[in-house]
Amino acid sequence: MLKKTLALALLGGLAGCAGNNLVVADVGSFHVGGRTVTLSGLPEKEIVYSPGAPVVKVNPNGDYAVEALYARYTLLASPKARYPLMLWHGGGLAGTTFETKPDGKPGWESYFLRAGYNVYVNDAVERGRASWARYPEIFKGEPFFRPKKEAWELFRIGETGGYASNPSARKSIAGTQFPIEYFDQFAKQAIPRWSTNDAATQAAYDAYVEKVCPCVIVVHSQGGNFAFNSALKYPDKVKALVAVETSGSPDPDTFDYAKVKSVPMLWLWGDNLDKAPWPAVFARQEKFRTLLVKAGGIGDRIALPELGVRGNTHMLMMDRNSDQVAELIDRWLTRQGVKR
Amino acid sequence: MLKKTLALALLGGLAGCAGNNLVVADVGSFHVGGRTVTLSGLPEKEIVYSPGAPVVKVNPNGDYAVEALYARYTLLASPKARYPLMLWHGGGLAGTTFETKPDGKPGWESYFLRAGYNVYVNDAVERGRASWARYPEIFKGEPFFRPKKEAWELFRIGETGGYASNPSARKSIAGTQFPIEYFDQFAKQAIPRWSTNDAATQAAYDAYVEKVCPCVIVVHSQGGNFAFNSALKYPDKVKALVAVETSGSPDPDTFDYAKVKSVPMLWLWGDNLDKAPWPAVFARQEKFRTLLVKAGGIGDRIALPELGVRGNTHMLMMDRNSDQVAELIDRWLTRQGVKR
Repeated sequence: MLKKTLALALLGGLAGCAGNNLVVADVGSFHVGGRTVTLSGLPEKEIVYSPGAPVVKVNPNGDYAVEALYARYTLLASPKARYPLMLWHGGGLAGTTFETKPDGKPGWESYFLRAGYNVYVNDAVERGRASWARYPEIFKGEPFFRPKKEAWELFRIGETGGYASNPSARKSIAGTQFPIEYFDQFAKQAIPRWSTNDAATQAAYDAYVEKVCPCVIVVHSQGGNFAFNSALKYPDKVKALVAVETSGSPDPDTFDYAKVKSVPMLWLWGDNLDKAPWPAVFARQEKFRTLLVKAGGIGDRIALPELGVRGNTHMLMMDRNSDQVAELIDRWLTRQGVKR
Repeated sequence: MLKKTLALALLGGLAGCAGNNLVVADVGSFHVGGRTVTLSGLPEKEIVYSPGAPVVKVNPNGDYAVEALYARYTLLASPKARYPLMLWHGGGLAGTTFETKPDGKPGWESYFLRAGYNVYVNDAVERGRASWARYPEIFKGEPFFRPKKEAWELFRIGETGGYASNPSARKSIAGTQFPIEYFDQFAKQAIPRWSTNDAATQAAYDAYVEKVCPCVIVVHSQGGNFAFNSALKYPDKVKALVAVETSGSPDPDTFDYAKVKSVPMLWLWGDNLDKAPWPAVFARQEKFRTLLVKAGGIGDRIALPELGVRGNTHMLMMDRNSDQVAELIDRWLTRQGVKR
């Protein structure tokens, strides 16, 4: 009886220690990849870096570290997954996509940590903590900035032409899962992008895969192109790939599908894909997926409306039912054998 | 005997659960502050956002979310400190300053978490995940990019003129604590900066303090100006301020020291402050500090060489003895009563 009581106390103690908490072995970050570029022939500048600081002469010529990727990781003391899960963001955004949602509720980083995965969240080249470089000297094009209106329409949160500065005058898509009262908070996550850095971004992602994997990749939107290419280059390191509303991919007509037959892939789609430019995006991804399956690969698809789940936007991981969507991913990954 | 054995097992179980691990109640992030700016009169552009994606017409006119601050937090299940500790970075850098060091070893974020503080690490306006805005339409100046040579010299890692592209040809300051073999890795953390965003940055920091504090602020370099101003505005919310090699501050001749008498402050300095431009920086900070003390405030100073600790650079939190420096801060904070 005493033995039983104390054993229960022991179990209770252990549960109380973890409980709803995460037992974390380590948190940290790193930059990976990139190169050094040397500039010359530019004029000197005088700068006062902060009020009261002395004038400093700065010579902008010389060596610069550019085109690295930044990643932050959280490692559990006892992960249930065999492989870490990497969350790759989309265009005009950074790793913040997967952190706390704009409505203040836990995002997918938190979900997958609590589901037992070690989680890596990165900022790709040119975004966030990965930093950006002088243009046109180093980056060859110019940056694009996303106005709120574009995010409202392109991400299928609101109707085309439905954005207004005044939040109460905005027209959202009927039944949207996006918490539209937090749309302005979401807009703060926007980060300028280039359309000329794909080779550098791919190189940094490849270096990232080499450093962290074997792994599972969950990739969103523009990131798709980089993830499919990394899977092609490292089919033994990418143990599964979840393509969340991927907007980019290598050319479906020339992709070497046979090389990625060992990499199970899942495409996940939200609702209202009949709105431009999504039919073309979806068709191209479906072509890629069906050619993969035809070549003997695993190319599964979850279109949420087919499961009766309606109203999901392009930003599934911020929608009110983001946990429900993450659970579908976790279940699919579990079926691929990534959990212990 | 059985009772004792099981009690020991219980204790052992609890210790094993935490052990060297962190028991974390929550991780997350947010953007705070900022404003909406509306642009008009700019021409439309056609963009292909990623290979294979359709051409999208982008109208750059409209509303933009700008000038917010980004912060990431880790909250412990049982913090030992009464207040969260905020780590504010310096110029041309972001919150990465305090994460894993360039040599791969744990940085100050990790140190203070393990010392029992809830820790917040932010990216100020224009940096990292806080993002940046079009210039000259929104940001009024142009960005500056830090060449490796400037970091090598200005941060007192190497001698003036001692930088070379070839790592083995670089001249470091004798006895430096900076792990110079990882200098190129450190250079990847550099982030473009403006000298025209101080008002916006201050506003965002103030919003951050309003959201998170009461708190303790540990601020580095350029961040000093913002932290002293926030302490002036919120003396009841800032429970202690540690100024780590602060290079900026409000005008010492006009600052209202009486208002911050309740905010204990500590200035912390590394070695080799005789190198330009540091004598002027140090003199101005010392003027600020001594006027604070004269007005009845607490303005302590730790100059590491006076304790026999030599070779520390401007990047104390990345130096080999970063734990030793953090321990001095933790001890000082403990003396100010911030631990339970």
